[in-house]
Amino acid sequence: MTNPTAAMLVIGDEILSGRTRDSNMHYLAGELTRLGIRLLEVRVVADDHPAIVAAVNALRAGHDHVFTSGGIGPTHDDITADAIAAAFGVPITHRADAMALMQAHYDRSGQPFNEARQRMARIPDGAVLIDNPVSTAPGFSLGNVHVMAGVPNIFQAMVASVAPKLTGGAPLLSQSLRVNRGEGDIAMAFGALAAEYPDLSMGSYPFIQNGAHGTNLVIRGTDAAQVGEAMTRLAALFPA
Amino acid sequence: MTNPTAAMLVIGDEILSGRTRDSNMHYLAGELTRLGIRLLEVRVVADDHPAIVAAVNALRAGHDHVFTSGGIGPTHDDITADAIAAAFGVPITHRADAMALMQAHYDRSGQPFNEARQRMARIPDGAVLIDNPVSTAPGFSLGNVHVMAGVPNIFQAMVASVAPKLTGGAPLLSQSLRVNRGEGDIAMAFGALAAEYPDLSMGSYPFIQNGAHGTNLVIRGTDAAQVGEAMTRLAALFPA
Repeated sequence: MTNPTAAMLVIGDEILSGRTRDSNMHYLAGELTRLGIRLLEVRVVADDHPAIVAAVNALRAGHDHVFTSGGIGPTHDDITADAIAAAFGVPITHRADAMALMQAHYDRSGQPFNEARQRMARIPDGAVLIDNPVSTAPGFSLGNVHVMAGVPNIFQAMVASVAPKLTGGAPLLSQSLRVNRGEGDIAMAFGALAAEYPDLSMGSYPFIQNGAHGTNLVIRGTDAAQVGEAMTRLAALFPA
Repeated sequence: MTNPTAAMLVIGDEILSGRTRDSNMHYLAGELTRLGIRLLEVRVVADDHPAIVAAVNALRAGHDHVFTSGGIGPTHDDITADAIAAAFGVPITHRADAMALMQAHYDRSGQPFNEARQRMARIPDGAVLIDNPVSTAPGFSLGNVHVMAGVPNIFQAMVASVAPKLTGGAPLLSQSLRVNRGEGDIAMAFGALAAEYPDLSMGSYPFIQNGAHGTNLVIRGTDAAQVGEAMTRLAALFPA
């Protein structure tokens, strides 16, 4: 498949300590599949400057797009913007357009636009702002790295803001077949079929329902005719 | 903190395509926190031999323990055991003790112990089996890498099997305070307190409930007295 590739970097101690269950990975994975962008790797790191810098530099060198979530709020543990600037070797300053957006937002809400909140207007030089229709404080894109908030509804809004600017590919299609047999019973025939279609990805996902073993078989690819043909043959192998 | 460190490697196209929502990361994160092992990094990669080998070698060099989930079933896309063997540069064969365990299991269940199922007895040389009380086919530990199934109830059972063999550390303690103020209002005072306790990790997690902003403040560390003292001071800063 020649679709663009992507990686995601989730930033936050709270995910790694088990306090918070990440939901942004699953959301982004679904959106990228719709856009025809193949998500090939996700990393989760702590709120740790060297760890973020190293992960950003490894991922941006290996993928067409990198999406980050987390660490762009007003508190001392929000260090993502500085780490991104360091990864690119560019300065970071309070940017005038971000300051103006946020000043207007806090004027409307009657809350003080204090030093902590102003931290959220610190943007690495050369970045393009990502609109945040939920709470104003923007994300940003620098090179191929798209930096977004960790709070799920803000993350999702930022993904919607940045998605139209991304170059996608042919939609990644998926068809699945539910078979009331264990994985071990279908593996040989399924593997033989998969070997005949090197351009398709075929996976099997076992489950147990009411004490009985079953397997969901999934065929993925970008060529609708080929996916359809392979699914027809799969269904013939394992009739209901 | 001098606690042992860990990384996790989640293996599977189904997570990256958005088909399946991973739950093993959150489960393992909670278990490791209880064991006093600091989970510092998670990676998710596709069912791709070079990607698995590269990730395993990077993670096992940097952490005391590495835990993997996924890719040890009977089908053609289950390539984790071979990739682990390649990462360590050791042979992989159908191991007699694993074959015997599984033969007995399938004899009891009346299912054929066919070639596909026998694949699950392929274990890299030098590995120690991890007991699987759910469906028998074992995981294994090789060096500091613990290789487990992706199906959540089997993953959890394997974690329970391997946990008693791990050297943990002082329990990672956590206390939290819920404050009915936005993050931007508490950031300065919270950051100043955090700066006084370099051995503790302090994080803030904003939420919106019934249209009002609030923040959960979390203090983590291994010294119970220090965590308690910092929480007392935090509570005094932000009285209910």
